[in-house]
Amino acid sequence: MTKELNIDEKFIRKTIELAEKGLGLVAPNPLVGSVIIDQFQNIIAEGYHHKHGDIHAEIDALNNLRSNLDLSKAILYCNLEPCSHNSPEKINFPCSPQIIQSGIKKVVIGMTDPNPKVAGNGIKMLRNAGIEVIYNILEEECQKLNRIFTTNILKNKTHVLIKTAQTLDGKIATITGDSKWITDIDARTYVHKLRVKYDSVMVGSNTAIIDDPKLDARLFKGRNPKRIIIDSNLRMPFSHHLINDELASNTYIFTSENVDKSKISILKDRGVNIIRVQNDGSHISLDHIFSELYNLKIYSVMVEGGAGLVTQIIKKNLFHEMISFIAPKIIGNGINVIGDLDILQINNAVEFSNVDYFKINNQIVFQGINKCLQD
Amino acid sequence: MTKELNIDEKFIRKTIELAEKGLGLVAPNPLVGSVIIDQFQNIIAEGYHHKHGDIHAEIDALNNLRSNLDLSKAILYCNLEPCSHNSPEKINFPCSPQIIQSGIKKVVIGMTDPNPKVAGNGIKMLRNAGIEVIYNILEEECQKLNRIFTTNILKNKTHVLIKTAQTLDGKIATITGDSKWITDIDARTYVHKLRVKYDSVMVGSNTAIIDDPKLDARLFKGRNPKRIIIDSNLRMPFSHHLINDELASNTYIFTSENVDKSKISILKDRGVNIIRVQNDGSHISLDHIFSELYNLKIYSVMVEGGAGLVTQIIKKNLFHEMISFIAPKIIGNGINVIGDLDILQINNAVEFSNVDYFKINNQIVFQGINKCLQD
Repeated sequence: MTKELNIDEKFIRKTIELAEKGLGLVAPNPLVGSVIIDQFQNIIAEGYHHKHGDIHAEIDALNNLRSNLDLSKAILYCNLEPCSHNSPEKINFPCSPQIIQSGIKKVVIGMTDPNPKVAGNGIKMLRNAGIEVIYNILEEECQKLNRIFTTNILKNKTHVLIKTAQTLDGKIATITGDSKWITDIDARTYVHKLRVKYDSVMVGSNTAIIDDPKLDARLFKGRNPKRIIIDSNLRMPFSHHLINDELASNTYIFTSENVDKSKISILKDRGVNIIRVQNDGSHISLDHIFSELYNLKIYSVMVEGGAGLVTQIIKKNLFHEMISFIAPKIIGNGINVIGDLDILQINNAVEFSNVDYFKINNQIVFQGINKCLQD
Repeated sequence: MTKELNIDEKFIRKTIELAEKGLGLVAPNPLVGSVIIDQFQNIIAEGYHHKHGDIHAEIDALNNLRSNLDLSKAILYCNLEPCSHNSPEKINFPCSPQIIQSGIKKVVIGMTDPNPKVAGNGIKMLRNAGIEVIYNILEEECQKLNRIFTTNILKNKTHVLIKTAQTLDGKIATITGDSKWITDIDARTYVHKLRVKYDSVMVGSNTAIIDDPKLDARLFKGRNPKRIIIDSNLRMPFSHHLINDELASNTYIFTSENVDKSKISILKDRGVNIIRVQNDGSHISLDHIFSELYNLKIYSVMVEGGAGLVTQIIKKNLFHEMISFIAPKIIGNGINVIGDLDILQINNAVEFSNVDYFKINNQIVFQGINKCLQD
């Protein structure tokens, strides 16, 4: 049974819906929505953070109010604590003082801001001004909405999501390599929606070479993510989409330091971004790649395969969460979704917390947070 | 969002709950519950089919009514169409005539009876007597409740459920064989509940030998299932639970025709049932085993492993449904839940229909019907 929402939860849910309009556009800022209701519980203004650099959600909502309203009985809802500090996009002052100035006497908040510069100070500022503040409403949903932001702000790291598509028995292809299609068009469309949400999508060189993917968001019709390829020896053919289409300047290739310079110059001429990173043994260093992503202001990445790259990332514990699209199919022998992790005991398995599931047609979508990174 | 039930659905749901009290006790009869309500929608009687040989649910409900009630405004609910034919347990006559005789003027039915001897005749008989009949209410849930019965009555076959417990990446143990525990105690308790529901539980000889399981329902505290072991060469040590505990007479071993007779006589002395079946190539014939189960009046079997036996049953398309307990864990290389099925293309994958999922703590439970058997 789905729990029925109370009034506060209903309006916080609404702020989450508004916040989602900023998906893929606000990073490294959080997704925030806001509504203001009158004493009859009618919404009198809505707002959200549209894109990085724009005004914050609460101010957007206040700006959308009809003028000269008496706000003494109004309530402002927002999924994230209003800020108390000056940030680059604030011309004058933070959100909390502006809410105080508006005359609103009650504020309901989904979650406190994990940003150490706020972290309760917004609430304190509001309360000191005599405003009633309620917080932690639908907190779990609010946390989920902004987990990329939380990774960014608390760890100064790019948020890494691993995405897989597999059969019930954990295979991504038959032994002959056939993989079309394990999941259906609706599941693949959902992946394109995730590509809109994430700053970037990453694949290994084998996947890039064999599948010749576009890694765009055409099925969802949203903004395309940056496309990241790990290709130590620049083996990808020059005719492939990722380095030959109109989005080539959206492509970032991580390669070895000692790679053929003439190839680099051809790719650079096409607008492709080449980042040379040092080797870590026989492979180029994944740690180095992920920290380089953060330096490049790429705040989130969805790793889409292949199994080799995914296995290395899991083995090095470099991911934050995982999403698996599981088709109700069995193929027996085939290519494993995850390769060797040197795990000899069940007790040492990679485990997930905050586990959640939903269905897309006959498929199940598993979501979980890497438990080891949380502990 | 969970759909809200209307009045008819609410009472059919109640009949399903009552029917479930007969779990494991009524085979080869269907699970049936019944309620009678008055014109104020208050329940005035409940009934269910308690066990094979007992009166049917509708009659149980009628018997539970206070005497001398005017039933002209009462409604009788039952999850399965009332029968119209004489069956062994009917002393006098079938349910439909008895309902007619009771004076009830309206009957609401979950699903029609797949039994070719009924199949609409019960409804016809009621309607011919001037009773208003509504049917196919929560039909899908009713079908699900009685799918064992449906296999039995329509195909004259034992209903075969395959049960697996696996990691997210499709493994049942690490490469060293460690498998304790992939799923938690609540998932294992649910398996014991299934053991109460099913007439029998089946394992291959390797699982029987290595795990030395009891295959009882101790965690759920219900009646124990019959225990079936496929052990062509009677390799299981005589000290093992399945042939050495107080439930030994509940154990059925399927073995080869040419097996050591002295071993058989020891086992028979302990009360163990030995069934010798012919070989099908190098293995004993699974087709033969399943048809023998039906002859033994074992109407349902849950196959619990190992991977070898499960793989053979899937390969030979001898199962009706599957339930998989998926733990939110990854171990990479390990022992696959399903072995080689000779499937080279995704299009030839074993597929499932009527797919459903639910959660037990952090684990997902997958349920699906073998699509190939349905088509």
